[in-house]
Amino acid sequence: MMKESEALKIIGRAPVRLDGEEKVTGKALYTVDVELPGMAHGKVLRSPFPHARVIEIDVHKAARLPGVITIITREDLSGLGFFGATYKDQSVVAIDKVRYVGDPVAAIAAEDESTAAEALELIRVEYDELPSVTNIDEALAPGAPLVHEVSSTGGEMHGYHYEIPDEFRGTNVCYHFGYSRGDVNAGFKKAAHVFEDTFTFPRVQHYSMEAHATVAQVKGDRITLWVGTQDPFALQEHVAEIFHVPLNKVRVIVPYVGGGYGGKLSVKAEPLAAVLSWRARRPVRLALSIEESFKTVTRHPARYRVKTGVSRDGRLVARECGIQMDTGGYADAGPRVTQKAGYRAVGPYRIPHVKTDAYTIYTNTVPAGAFRGFGTLQVTWAYESQMDIMAHRLGIDPLEFRLKNLLKKGELYTAGDTPVDCDLKEGLIRAAQAIGWNEKSKPNRGKGLSCCMKDGGGTYKVASAAVKMNFDGSIVLLTGTVEVGQGALTALSQVVAEELALTLDRITVAQLDTDVTPFDCSTNASSSMVVMGLAVQRAAQDLKRQLLREAGRLWNGGLDHAVFQDGKIVSGDGRAISYEEVITRRFEARAGEMIGRGTYKDKKSKKAVLGSPTTFWETSWGAAEVEVDLETGEIKLHKYVSVADVGKAIHPVQCVGQDEGAVMFAVGHSLLEEMVYKDGQLLNPNLVDYRLPYFDDQPVEFETILLENQNGPGPFGSKGMGEGGLLPVAPAIGNAVYNAVGVRLYDLPMTPERVWRALRFQKDRGK
Amino acid sequence: MMKESEALKIIGRAPVRLDGEEKVTGKALYTVDVELPGMAHGKVLRSPFPHARVIEIDVHKAARLPGVITIITREDLSGLGFFGATYKDQSVVAIDKVRYVGDPVAAIAAEDESTAAEALELIRVEYDELPSVTNIDEALAPGAPLVHEVSSTGGEMHGYHYEIPDEFRGTNVCYHFGYSRGDVNAGFKKAAHVFEDTFTFPRVQHYSMEAHATVAQVKGDRITLWVGTQDPFALQEHVAEIFHVPLNKVRVIVPYVGGGYGGKLSVKAEPLAAVLSWRARRPVRLALSIEESFKTVTRHPARYRVKTGVSRDGRLVARECGIQMDTGGYADAGPRVTQKAGYRAVGPYRIPHVKTDAYTIYTNTVPAGAFRGFGTLQVTWAYESQMDIMAHRLGIDPLEFRLKNLLKKGELYTAGDTPVDCDLKEGLIRAAQAIGWNEKSKPNRGKGLSCCMKDGGGTYKVASAAVKMNFDGSIVLLTGTVEVGQGALTALSQVVAEELALTLDRITVAQLDTDVTPFDCSTNASSSMVVMGLAVQRAAQDLKRQLLREAGRLWNGGLDHAVFQDGKIVSGDGRAISYEEVITRRFEARAGEMIGRGTYKDKKSKKAVLGSPTTFWETSWGAAEVEVDLETGEIKLHKYVSVADVGKAIHPVQCVGQDEGAVMFAVGHSLLEEMVYKDGQLLNPNLVDYRLPYFDDQPVEFETILLENQNGPGPFGSKGMGEGGLLPVAPAIGNAVYNAVGVRLYDLPMTPERVWRALRFQKDRGK
Repeated sequence: MMKESEALKIIGRAPVRLDGEEKVTGKALYTVDVELPGMAHGKVLRSPFPHARVIEIDVHKAARLPGVITIITREDLSGLGFFGATYKDQSVVAIDKVRYVGDPVAAIAAEDESTAAEALELIRVEYDELPSVTNIDEALAPGAPLVHEVSSTGGEMHGYHYEIPDEFRGTNVCYHFGYSRGDVNAGFKKAAHVFEDTFTFPRVQHYSMEAHATVAQVKGDRITLWVGTQDPFALQEHVAEIFHVPLNKVRVIVPYVGGGYGGKLSVKAEPLAAVLSWRARRPVRLALSIEESFKTVTRHPARYRVKTGVSRDGRLVARECGIQMDTGGYADAGPRVTQKAGYRAVGPYRIPHVKTDAYTIYTNTVPAGAFRGFGTLQVTWAYESQMDIMAHRLGIDPLEFRLKNLLKKGELYTAGDTPVDCDLKEGLIRAAQAIGWNEKSKPNRGKGLSCCMKDGGGTYKVASAAVKMNFDGSIVLLTGTVEVGQGALTALSQVVAEELALTLDRITVAQLDTDVTPFDCSTNASSSMVVMGLAVQRAAQDLKRQLLREAGRLWNGGLDHAVFQDGKIVSGDGRAISYEEVITRRFEARAGEMIGRGTYKDKKSKKAVLGSPTTFWETSWGAAEVEVDLETGEIKLHKYVSVADVGKAIHPVQCVGQDEGAVMFAVGHSLLEEMVYKDGQLLNPNLVDYRLPYFDDQPVEFETILLENQNGPGPFGSKGMGEGGLLPVAPAIGNAVYNAVGVRLYDLPMTPERVWRALRFQKDRGK
Repeated sequence: MMKESEALKIIGRAPVRLDGEEKVTGKALYTVDVELPGMAHGKVLRSPFPHARVIEIDVHKAARLPGVITIITREDLSGLGFFGATYKDQSVVAIDKVRYVGDPVAAIAAEDESTAAEALELIRVEYDELPSVTNIDEALAPGAPLVHEVSSTGGEMHGYHYEIPDEFRGTNVCYHFGYSRGDVNAGFKKAAHVFEDTFTFPRVQHYSMEAHATVAQVKGDRITLWVGTQDPFALQEHVAEIFHVPLNKVRVIVPYVGGGYGGKLSVKAEPLAAVLSWRARRPVRLALSIEESFKTVTRHPARYRVKTGVSRDGRLVARECGIQMDTGGYADAGPRVTQKAGYRAVGPYRIPHVKTDAYTIYTNTVPAGAFRGFGTLQVTWAYESQMDIMAHRLGIDPLEFRLKNLLKKGELYTAGDTPVDCDLKEGLIRAAQAIGWNEKSKPNRGKGLSCCMKDGGGTYKVASAAVKMNFDGSIVLLTGTVEVGQGALTALSQVVAEELALTLDRITVAQLDTDVTPFDCSTNASSSMVVMGLAVQRAAQDLKRQLLREAGRLWNGGLDHAVFQDGKIVSGDGRAISYEEVITRRFEARAGEMIGRGTYKDKKSKKAVLGSPTTFWETSWGAAEVEVDLETGEIKLHKYVSVADVGKAIHPVQCVGQDEGAVMFAVGHSLLEEMVYKDGQLLNPNLVDYRLPYFDDQPVEFETILLENQNGPGPFGSKGMGEGGLLPVAPAIGNAVYNAVGVRLYDLPMTPERVWRALRFQKDRGK
């Protein structure tokens, strides 16, 4: 019926971000900017002990402090449910015991923050301290104290059935993911060489510029939350469950979000804010400090023992993956992170015999949850480091060794999953070329490569969008994707603009509000461009169909070869009608609107290991050139090349920005960051003691290469991106360090001290 | 395909209002409760002269006052458009001249209201005073000064073509409505008796509890307004036109509205708030005082000369209607009010020969605009008073006289309009019975009747609604109807609840926000229950169709005799599936939603006098029993009976409340209220000098009778209501006064002084 002009007008270009002006002029509003009449301010009393029974809480003195409005303790939770991203193991405040230093015990709403803080000091809590476990080894030791007395034996998660192996029942293990194919023992027997290495990944914090904040307003039986969340619809559901009300009683409004990185997924301190408001009968703002965000959620510290068998001619034959992830005092997203880590542990290589066992383990530390790259950095660090270990041991160039084993486009990662949708070799060769792989480095300098892949978009996504055209032909886009800084709203608006042949200034994105915004699963896992992108594109196309139908009615047909051009429908025979005219003639007045709707839904499949084939593969390659200071152990990043398969860059400048940001993030994890526990106490929950990267820590030379083969499932051939860039960084740097000075690092971060020690004392831990 | 259970579950019952708890506990938020970071406060400098040229405005001293952020004068309007509900004759502040006492000349945004008020005093304006006209006679006098130099000769309004008659071109007349049928002069010749009477209606104020208030926030090129408006979509359009931006750049959010009554239709002080915010680069709150609301909009003072010919046997033969309406310094809705007054001037009677001429006249007084009953009270006061004059002169009982002449159900009011849709006699007889028409009154007491009709719902309506079902089966209703206190949100939710067999607690109405709420023409003219009611009902039915389709897919058919029951679809063979299950199975997860959409659109017809047949007829009857104090002239209302044709009362308690409120309103107009001008100055813009009714002024006995014949076009046979109750009040009281003490009042309000004078000095003004 219609043929579009082939040339893209705005896709692939780099218009000014829709949120740009507001953000650079400081006018963008975040949750803490929300002001409501009579708003009170909340503060949280947190456990000073890693593990203790709560004997008594005395709030009388605090309650008498002028300006205190309400105090919440376990006494106030009667009738309220538990919550948690996977298991409902978390109460709004501690009930029987506290499980980590920072676990909320009580909360206060007062006229102002300082009164609330002062009142915190007046609450007396009597604890009965319990022995605690603050790392994986302690938690798994025989007879270890249990963080949660009732331990699971298995269950269903996202359509995937799991069981806790017998040996771990009744321990601190709360989840097990197992996967195997072929016969891994037979594989090892066939292998000429078997390598076994163990790598560790530290506990790191998201450190969003905006700490967790919520403004809650409970009026009657309706709860409204203004919150910088990545996950408004999940939060709505959790809060409805906690309060035992239907979804229409919970409204989540999302102002701008000052960074998320997974730390603002699911549910965090929002229920506490809601309960405070409920009890105070006033709106309550609960804005956590940076230190409190450190005590709210982290990335999972992990240990990955990877055992790989290789044939005489350098082909991978078998791999056994043993992964342990420390999820802290509450599961949060731990089991799902573990599942993904276990699933992704095999790497982008052809390996006939595989066995994976991944475990989630409770400890008395901060809960670990979703974090940009969700379970993947922990395993790429290991398997891509080991690839170099094996290549060197076998005397094969690491590039050649990888090329020999990489999956081909169209091959299956696992049976039932989406076939690999990009040319893994192409990206690796581009990275190698850009770093000058074949050129010799100067002394103490070395180069490293890595190649990583994750099933992109998260597990099983549903998203809807609406494109509302006002009667003057201008647009309001309703999308549940959260603008967390990634530029999604601009990219999604470009999709609408392209489809409807409009300029961006005629498109506005509506405030995200669960009352009115169509459902979206969540802003995570690099999913938005494909999942929401398709929903938005389909909504725009639905609107186009309606416009065409109306135009056909007005024209009595004549739509052959009609195209959308400059805000008009232009027929093959040259007639043109503006969208405004179509709508105002439809409604016989300057009135009404047309609304297009679109939905995207992943497929479910029992054949897929995780119950749903991946939406797309997010593939990324890294190449690093480093120099190691032999005296100090300091690693200097001379150059870093990041290659990202984006299918089609909707907004290339934003794609590069996302990719650079991802690398800079991962540089912190690789070289600097680690949350340090001693005696169950977190020692460095602040920016003085917890070392985020400065610009000086970042690569001197920095290159991002976008692979655009228009082969993605998203609009205009796009794929999701933004997480991929993190995955190859640590192993590329680790491999470069080995290449430079011949020492292999197994533990992150690669601090000068660790490098210095390795240079002097390293014995190879592999066997 | 499906058969519904016949019994209504919630329609016709009286559940607690959805907004009840919030309002009685003081938690409901209105515009003045909106707080934004950095919000400044606006104040307006207003003209002290009724008519003057603005020579010079000196703001230097004011600008230097600490705390003053910006000052707006005509210098700041460059590039901005004009506005007005009908004619664009109003600028944001005065440009060349001021046209009434209160006309905005400048505005200030400051850190707080008192600073802004202080700064107002420092602005020096040099005026060149001009001769002024402050009533209809002055305005129409030969050589009268012109309020607007450029006067119209005619134009198009809502599809209706009008011309200013030659004699009024270049005068203060800005609109003329003419209608005729038959041959009125021939009719008068045939008549046995011809009556000619002139009645006047005073200038009265809406006096909403909430004065006009706006919070405006201009960020970049986007304008957001929080405003207690009845007309968010029209306001959006006006503001977009003033700023020359597309509709997507203007967002109107409507908190609760503390009364509207027409005074918050179209556009008032909102553009001023927007310009202040634009210039201040900060959000600005502009909250008018009560006095300022008095100087913003009023009801039209009017004069109606009604000439009626009657046959020997008491049948109306001809009527000539001459109406003059004073629209003040700017047209506002004046022409449309005049059109409606002219159209409605004939009354609910069968009159073969009719001629109507209605004029809108500029004067140097407060602009007059829409007001509950829109042009109708001015004419019912006249024609229903004259009915009694004629009946008494002819010696016929006023009830009999009316019954003889009333239109029958199905008869045409005018050719091309919707036939009369109720039994006018039934209502009148009910009113007469309830007041005890045939029982003799005590001395100085008397009874009066009246019967009134207006084309209901306004002219040409378009409305859309969406019913969003969350995956748990709960509902968010999106409707553009404003909750102005009338209870519309509860009644509309009842429609959804009834259609979907849900309880009200599973239905929430979303915040009205033009970004996301489907278009609605406006909350006025008793239109919502029919116009939006049908849109909402159709949206619910659309959702039901979708649910049934999904259920059919899950059941492989089996939908014969399916019904919706208790949140489930129940098939004829007894299977049941909850809405939650339908949706979660559709999306294979606790995800997604279903959205039903509905639209209502009036018909257009060239045959209809006003271009569009009325949506329904709003018909109302009144019967009053009064006692007149012969010494003081005071009228005591002993009893008032109001009969309203509601088709079907969706929420009977709210209907009665609306009707009682309407009568109480009209009691004020009838007995007490009048804005008094002297030398162009408004003398009583406050509650000390402007006398609103107290409860003591209201009828001792008060009865509302709802006629429910299920014959309305709205959901479940409903009609709109809420305005009708006002129409019969003044003539019913006036007729009762005549019946009590034999004097006829021609001018409202019927103050003790007027009655006292009439008792002593009246000569009949009729002829």
